[in-house]
This record gives sequence, C-alpha cells and structure tokens, in this order.
Amino acid sequence: MRKERIPSQEVITRTPFPASEKIYVSGKIHKDLKVAMREISLNDTVHKLTGKVEKNPPVTVYDTSGAYTDPNIEIDIAKGLEPIRAKWIADREDTEQLEEITSSYGQERLNKTDLDWLRFPNLRAPLRAKKGKNVSQMHYARKGIITPEMEYIAIRENQRRAELMQEGVEFRQHKGMSFGANIPQGFITAEFVREEVAKGRAVIPSNINHPEIEPMIIGRNFLVKINANIGNSAVTSSIAEEVEKAVWACRWGADTIMDLSTGQNIHETREWIIRNSPVPIGTVPIYQALEKVKGKAENLTWEIFRDTLIEQAEQGVDYFTIHAGVLLRYIPLTAKRITGIVSRGGSIMAKWCLAHHKESFLYTHFEDICEIMKAYDVAFSLGDGLRPGCLADANDAAQFAELETLGELTKIAWEHDVQVMIEGPGHVPMQLIKENMDKQLRDCYEAPFYTLGPLTTDIAPGYDHITSAIGAAQIGWYGTAMLCYVTPKEHLGLPNKKDVKDGVITYKIAAHAADLAKGHPGAQHRDDALSKARFEFRWVDQFNLSLDPDTAKEFHDETLPADGAKVAHFCSMCGPKFCSMKITQEVRDYAAKLEADEKTAIEKGMKEKSKEFADKGKEIYL
Amino acid sequence: MRKERIPSQEVITRTPFPASEKIYVSGKIHKDLKVAMREISLNDTVHKLTGKVEKNPPVTVYDTSGAYTDPNIEIDIAKGLEPIRAKWIADREDTEQLEEITSSYGQERLNKTDLDWLRFPNLRAPLRAKKGKNVSQMHYARKGIITPEMEYIAIRENQRRAELMQEGVEFRQHKGMSFGANIPQGFITAEFVREEVAKGRAVIPSNINHPEIEPMIIGRNFLVKINANIGNSAVTSSIAEEVEKAVWACRWGADTIMDLSTGQNIHETREWIIRNSPVPIGTVPIYQALEKVKGKAENLTWEIFRDTLIEQAEQGVDYFTIHAGVLLRYIPLTAKRITGIVSRGGSIMAKWCLAHHKESFLYTHFEDICEIMKAYDVAFSLGDGLRPGCLADANDAAQFAELETLGELTKIAWEHDVQVMIEGPGHVPMQLIKENMDKQLRDCYEAPFYTLGPLTTDIAPGYDHITSAIGAAQIGWYGTAMLCYVTPKEHLGLPNKKDVKDGVITYKIAAHAADLAKGHPGAQHRDDALSKARFEFRWVDQFNLSLDPDTAKEFHDETLPADGAKVAHFCSMCGPKFCSMKITQEVRDYAAKLEADEKTAIEKGMKEKSKEFADKGKEIYL
Repeated sequence: MRKERIPSQEVITRTPFPASEKIYVSGKIHKDLKVAMREISLNDTVHKLTGKVEKNPPVTVYDTSGAYTDPNIEIDIAKGLEPIRAKWIADREDTEQLEEITSSYGQERLNKTDLDWLRFPNLRAPLRAKKGKNVSQMHYARKGIITPEMEYIAIRENQRRAELMQEGVEFRQHKGMSFGANIPQGFITAEFVREEVAKGRAVIPSNINHPEIEPMIIGRNFLVKINANIGNSAVTSSIAEEVEKAVWACRWGADTIMDLSTGQNIHETREWIIRNSPVPIGTVPIYQALEKVKGKAENLTWEIFRDTLIEQAEQGVDYFTIHAGVLLRYIPLTAKRITGIVSRGGSIMAKWCLAHHKESFLYTHFEDICEIMKAYDVAFSLGDGLRPGCLADANDAAQFAELETLGELTKIAWEHDVQVMIEGPGHVPMQLIKENMDKQLRDCYEAPFYTLGPLTTDIAPGYDHITSAIGAAQIGWYGTAMLCYVTPKEHLGLPNKKDVKDGVITYKIAAHAADLAKGHPGAQHRDDALSKARFEFRWVDQFNLSLDPDTAKEFHDETLPADGAKVAHFCSMCGPKFCSMKITQEVRDYAAKLEADEKTAIEKGMKEKSKEFADKGKEIYL
Repeated sequence: MRKERIPSQEVITRTPFPASEKIYVSGKIHKDLKVAMREISLNDTVHKLTGKVEKNPPVTVYDTSGAYTDPNIEIDIAKGLEPIRAKWIADREDTEQLEEITSSYGQERLNKTDLDWLRFPNLRAPLRAKKGKNVSQMHYARKGIITPEMEYIAIRENQRRAELMQEGVEFRQHKGMSFGANIPQGFITAEFVREEVAKGRAVIPSNINHPEIEPMIIGRNFLVKINANIGNSAVTSSIAEEVEKAVWACRWGADTIMDLSTGQNIHETREWIIRNSPVPIGTVPIYQALEKVKGKAENLTWEIFRDTLIEQAEQGVDYFTIHAGVLLRYIPLTAKRITGIVSRGGSIMAKWCLAHHKESFLYTHFEDICEIMKAYDVAFSLGDGLRPGCLADANDAAQFAELETLGELTKIAWEHDVQVMIEGPGHVPMQLIKENMDKQLRDCYEAPFYTLGPLTTDIAPGYDHITSAIGAAQIGWYGTAMLCYVTPKEHLGLPNKKDVKDGVITYKIAAHAADLAKGHPGAQHRDDALSKARFEFRWVDQFNLSLDPDTAKEFHDETLPADGAKVAHFCSMCGPKFCSMKITQEVRDYAAKLEADEKTAIEKGMKEKSKEFADKGKEIYL
C-alpha cells in the first residue's frame, strides 16, 4: 500500500501565537548568532478616573516552537529546517563528511528501493569526528572554548532581561530558596554555560548530525526543561503526521523530543523527524535493536547494538537512553516488588543478563559506547531500568543500587568528555522525593537529573499527568534539570494530539513552578505581567500571556462569548456587582481622587485617610 | 415563567460505582450507627505457570457519595435524604423545635405564595439550642462527651482497617514524615476525635438543622478533605440541576460543598441543596446580605447580616465563611499589590470599612456572631479577605496581618466553644507555601487550615486546577486540613459539570498525595491494590480501583477497545513483545519453575541462581 512520496505538509501546524512576534537576538562573541525568542505585545492600561494611558512593555518568552511559528520562514518538510549549526560545526575543523553511512543496517535500508517512496528525499552525508578528535560540547568546554552553541544558550536563557531592565522594565522576584540559581550577577553568561558543561553539571544535546537544532541546555542552574515522548503506533500514522506530532509538542513547549517508535519503518520515520525538529531528539536504541532480533532479548549482541548506535548517531539523534546500570546482582532485588521491573529497557536487559549469566554488553562495552558518543556528540541519558513502578517500590534497594552504578558510569563517561544525564523515577510519594534528588546529586556527582514525573499516587489512571505534575514540580524545585512529561493516557493507552498538548502544558506548569521556587531570576516576570493584565481586565492580554491562549479564550467565551466581554471591567464569574477586582480598583481610585498617590496613602496611614474621606462625604461609591 | 412544581429528579446521578457495594459498619458506643463505606471487590489472580489461584480481598474506601450510590435506597429529592442525625440530636435534649423560622427575610420568602412552586415541599420547623445551651460539637467534646457524630467519624476514617488486618489483609506503609498523623496506635478512636475537637485542632461541621449529613471531620490528624464550590449562575439552571451539581460533586469525592449562589431564589435553592446533601454545606453569608442591599456594600448593616446568619443557620448551613479579619488599617497595605483585593468578601468589607471609617460589624459584633453559631452549631470558616491574588502579592504584610487577626478571633470563638477553621490562599509560589502553613499553625493555635489551592504559577489560565493541585498537595502535606478545589475555568468562567468533576478528581489526587506524604496509616492500601492489579493485567480491577473508573476504561478502550484486551497479558502501549511487565513476570516465573520461591531466590543470591540456570540449559526464554 503505497502512500504519497513526499508527505503532505498540510497537517503541520504553522499558526503564529496571538499578538506574538518572533524576534532574533544577535551574539556578541559570535556575531552571526540569531537567537529566536517570542515577544508578546500588550495593550495599554487606561486608568479610568484619571484617563492616564500607561504603556505595557512587551513580554519576551523562551520559545521552543522553532521556525514553524515564524510566518516569514518557508517550511518544506521534504527539505527540513535550515541547518543553522552547520557553519559552526564546519568552522571547528574537527569533523569529516563520510562518503556513506557507516551502519550496515542503515545501508541495508538505503538500498531497499521499495522504501524510496517514504525515504526523506534530501539526505545529507553524515559527519563524524576526525580520527582522534572529540566533538562533544563537554570537550570544548573543558578546553576553555566557548562554542556558538554556548553563547546561543546564554542569550536564550536570559530572555532579553538585561536589555529590558536597561529600558526600565521592572523584574520582581520573591525572596526564597535559590539553591538552583547560583548564577553570577543574576545573568547567564556564555562563560557560565561553558563552566557548567565543563563540570558536567549541564549538558547541551547537540549531535553534529543535527545542525537544525536551536541549542538548549539541561542543567539545574538553568530553566527547568521538559521532554515529550512521541512515537508511531501499531496503526501507522503517516510520516507527515509523525513530524506534526513533534512540531505540535514543540509548539506547546517541549524542549526535547524522545522518539520511542517501534515497528515498521522507524529508521526512515526518524530521519524525517530529525530533519524537521528544532529541538534535540532522544531515543532508546535498545528498542530498535530488539526489533532487529525479532523481540528476543537474549539474542541481542553488542554488535547489533553498536550498529544501532551508529545508525542513529549518523542520523542526528542527540541523546541515547542506555540502561547500562542494570547489573546481574540487582535483578533479584526486584522480585519482591509489587510491580517488579517496569522499564522496558530495564526488563530487556534483565532478561538478557539472566539468560547469559553475565553483565550486559551495555555495561561491559561502556567505554566502546563512549567512543561512539564522542565521535558525534551524542549525550548519555543513563536509563533507570530498575525504577519503581508504584509507590510501594519507591526508593528501594534495587533502585538505589542502580543509581550508584549510574554514578560510576558517569565518571567513566566524563573521562571521555562525553556528556551525561541521569534518568530518574517514576512513582514516588512526596515525602520520598527529596531523598531521590539528594542521592542523585551526591552519587552522580551533580550530573543533571532527568525524571519521569514522579507520580505521587497510583490511584488515578486517566489523570497521571496531574499525579505526576505534583511530583515533577517538587523534584524540579529540588534540582531536577529536565522533566519527562506524562500524558493523561499513561498506563492506559497511546496519547493522541490532545493528550500530547495536555501533557506538555501540564509539564510547562510544573517546570515553571520549579523555576519560580528555585528563584530563577526573571522567572516571575510573565506571571506578573499576566496578573496585572488580569487585574486590569485586559482579557486579551491575559489570554495571550498564558501558556495556552486558545484554551483560555475558549473557556472565557463559554461563559461570555460577546467580544464586548473581552474589554468588560468585571469578571465573567461574578458579574458587575460582585467583582472584587472592580471594588479594589475603586479603593485605589478613591486614593487617586483624593489627590494622594498610593505611596502617600500608605505613608499617611489609614486613620488620616478615613478622616479625609469623612470630610468630603461618603457618597463616593453610589 | 413557571417551572415544574416538584423538580424532575431524572437528572440526579444514581449509578453505583462498578464492582462496588455500599457497606454499613455499626458503632460500638452508639450501636445504632450505620457508617457508610464503599467496598470494591476484585478478581482473583491466576498465576500462569503454577495455575495457583490467589484471592484478592476487597478494598474498602472512604465514600462521600451518600445514599445516591446505594441502589437499595429510594431517593426523592422532594423529600430529601433520611435525617440520620435527628435522633442523636433529639437525644441530647438541649434543642427545641421552633414554631416558625426566626429570620424576618426567611418569613418574607415563606409568605410569598408566588414562590410556592419552587419551594421545597417538605419543610421542617427549625431546631435551636434551648436558652443557655450550647449545641456545638466542641462544647460536647470539652465536656468529655463522645457524640454519635464523633464515633461515626472514627469508624469512617479507619475504613475497616483494623478488621481487615485481623482478616490477614496486609497494609504497607512507607516510612517517611508523619507529623500530621500522630494517631494513637495508628487507629482513630472516638476518644481521639473528641480530643482533637476539644483542642480546636479539628472541626465537625454539623448544624443541628442539617441532620441528613454523614458526619465528617476536618483536621490535620485525619484524612485531608476537599471542598467543591457550586452555585447557580445568571442563566438559572433548574433546581434539580442545582441539586445534581451537589450530588455530582459528592459522587467524585467532595467532602463538603460551598453554595456560592448569587441572584434570584437563592434562599429556596439552598433549602433544596441542604435537604439533599449528605455532606456539610458552607456559604458566604455576606454575598446574600449584599443582595439584600442591592449590591451597595456601604449599606450593609449588622442587623441585615445577623438576619442572614439566622436565616441560613435555620436552613442547616454547616459553616459560614466570615471575613472578620479585614481591619481598617490593613486595607492600605493592599494598595501597592499587583492584584489588590481579590476576595469578594474581602473587597465588600474593605469598601464598607472605608465608607464608614470604622471596623466592620463582622469584627465588632464577633461575639454576637458566636452566640448564633453555638445555638445551631455552625462552624466558623474565618475568611481570608486579603489573600493574595497573584504570586507577587503572596505572603505580604496585608495577608499576614489579617491572619494574625484571624488567630485572635479564633481564641474568642473558642471561648464560646464555637468551632473554627481558617481560610488560606490563594496564589503562592512553592518556596513560600511552608511559611504560610507554619504561620497559620502558630498564629491560629492549630485551628484547621482550609486553603484555596494555592496556585503555584499565574501563567496557565485554563489549567488552574493543575497549577493549584501542585500547591494543594504540598500544603496538605505540611498540615492543611481541607483543600478548596479549583476548576479549569478558574479566572475565566463558570464551571460546567465536566469542570466540577475535573476539579474534584484533581483535588482528590492532591489530598491523597498529602495523606501518603503525611504517613496517614492505611492511605497507601488502595495504591498498592491498584498497582498489583496493574502488574497482573487485571485491567478491570485497575479501572474499578481508580478515582474515576469511567475515564480509565474509556481511555483504555480508545487504544484497545476489544473486551479481550481487558484480560490481555500485555499493556496497550507496548504490545506483546515489548511489555516490561510481561518480562518481569517471566523473571519471577523463572524463579518459581526452578522450585525456588522468591524468598529463597533472594537468600541464595544471584550467583547460585545463575549456576542452576546454566546447569539446566539456557533455552528457557525460547
């Protein structure tokens, strides 16, 4: 059954966000950088009594949506996104373009002419580090080099805060804990990015074969990031639909995408996704390797796995989940659990270990894997194959034994200047979350933690985006650098587009709540702008500043659909009489009318104010 | 426009929960008690290799749904629920039945014959304490009396745990923080309930004119409770629909209902709701008082407010939100806020105070209010009229000044043996939540805290059930006794039925996550039963044990609709090859087949196991 040769790209969402403009900020060290951000413009505030018009400066927000939301950029998914990193990579002169792909499986797929119809039509020859070279961002960082990627990230993380402050925009910040935000002078510099990467406290997933990405960083002294999982299902969706899933997830805020596809044509599908993804792509290579041995875990070999790593590295996968910490002696520690081993990768490796009575090739060949990683700059995401699958199994001997092994492996990877993050649970009740985070930081030498949730109860299938957002916000606050989203379909079925959006928005909320709690400078700016708009009944601004303007507007329309209501000076919930905000405004206006500004009002104190009011008559609220 | 005289009760949801039976547990001190609980029966586990059949004991859960989910009980909303407390109240011989209602507004409404069509047809004459008597649960508690209400609550909170443990059912519990659960011997006794109420650490909202309630308790040494707000909107829904809103909210887990109706016929609507509500009803009487003065806050008087309190107390409202802590000198503290005063009650009182240059009648007549409260046993819910409406305003001088005043008022109420809880915010970033809780416990002498959320970010209108569930779970863990739900429509519009359900389920999740984190004994039992069902592919049991069986099943059906899939030994997400649970089961079965049970397997250690395996051949996983 042949489908269209070049997938129709009509399914790709390209609508820009309302009242938003894509802006591009230049670099200082690397002048050619064009760091993409989204600027949301706001309406003026009109003070009712005085008639004074107050300008509200636009709000700049971190933008993961890529070129798709810039109407000035032409998108052709058969060509892929502009390879903005290509020149930076070439300028380093440490890579070579291969004549053909190295992976034998990749070659095999390439030679199948019956797949031509679904193959990405504009394949590039892959890059690889020159012999003896190491092309990882960690390697450069340790040599003291500030790469364009690092400067891009520094500019991106600051969201024009310094410039806006110079223009007089106020950035409020609550006092509170800020152990995650020890940023020099409150601004992220390119040098700070370099240091954090050099120390292993942050990773920049950035395969040299994925030049299309807008560089981003995962580390606890930066904004908390989120990952969205996608993957084709048994009922194969078209390739354009797979690309759209990634575009859709990025639109709502996914900082990275994991492609967890199984089944037919995953090699070809992955190529389409990578070429069109503005964010780093992660995979779990053991899934594909298992397909190559027809699902028999015990038939997996190092050679098959190695070929899979190279196949995917040459396509441009930015990080690999590798479950190298599942050791033989840890497996029986799971036997008394309520839910045993729930990680797919973990159970595959456990089965292999039992069948062969030895440690897995992931563990024994770990240094060989490092050699591959550094030749393409693929980052490790060391998988937690023994993570708990329910509250009862949380923080048990199996989980913590594996975590200690992941720490040992981190040290080995760092000896190769290979970037590492560590995956975490899973299902953990609130009171045990901090123990996880503290142990991870200690045992894994501050390598970034990347957790799935954790879910804080087991009794709400259908709502596990929420059970897990509670845990995710908390562990993000404690120091987790990236949160892997959970959708409402977790444990029950495959997420559809609505589920993906629900999962992403929910996790943006958790990540943002964590940024606020960590005291990340500038994190509260968007909250304050939205709250001001809310208070001043600038409904449209409130919608536009929200994580999901479409839903906010739609919900408001349900109660008060008329356009007039969007400028109404009362809430849709209470009607004109009961609106507390209206009354508060009257309290303020009262101060204004008595020719005492708010500051004087506070200084004079209330007793004096009352007397003034009495003198002038009490009928002001008629 | 006349509607039906007796509202059609076809809209009332009466479907029992799947595989669930309503059970009634008798009292020991008060033999006539019939404490309602829900028992969920489970399927057997069939061990594949051994063929062994293992019985799974039924799981008993706390049930707020009332008689509606018991198919053996006839429901007629024109008659109301059975007044199960009537005899207990009568037996105390401290109340008198009034010949007619005392409130002049209530009389006025009663005499309007054009309202006969919508009036509840079976009005009871109200009860009031005999002269000089105090009928509050706190009063009894302090006299050392264990009321039937207290014993009912003790039995209800334990959920048959003691009996089930005697029958051999295992209750696991994680170690962890348990500062909220200092329960003697891990079981709640009627005497413990009495002590907590006597100390003011818990309240039992139980107006003598609401004999239909199934008694419940709000205190941090008990299960965390949730409240759902309902209220008729401008577009008046039928009275039966209003009753259904309450029934619907209780069905999904609301422990109390606040009726925040405004507009026409709220007196009559309230009567219908109370007569048909198995949970305590709270109101904000100032809203109705404001209607009586046509929305002009400055025209409010103590007399109008007093009459409103009596009107509602004689209908059976169980707790009143009263914003008595909004003092004149606190009002200017809000002037520099981003969102000023956002509490409706708070802004009404602020306006009144400014207009009259004096402290509000809520504050000056506080002891008069206490006299009313103790004559009917209405509990105070001291309102936080100056709560923050955005993150930037959290934990500020205005909020904390009011909280201190609420503490002073608590002491006064306690001198009258009147029950008190304290309302809390609102919008608070995570790192400032604990400060709120600690200050409330200290300044309000451990009176139960009852918080709205708090919302942990301001940037997600449309998802504020989630932004607030993050804060609610956290503050519940720290010690908040009841969480007021927030729906997805918060800030945007009026919640529909779906929103109410989403809000309630989300808050049940937050409350349960808090119970787990506090180490409430037995809280983890349902999680463990569900996780075991999940691991054993007992899909139907997994659905039935979940907070929302309908949605869990529906989501599963979307991916695998066939009935066969409900017994399939693989997950809907991964298919048969990749299922980690299936592989884990094989790991366990392997141990079983080698005639070593799991215990021996662990003791012998993995090395021996490997050797055995090698001796017998490696082909077990073919």
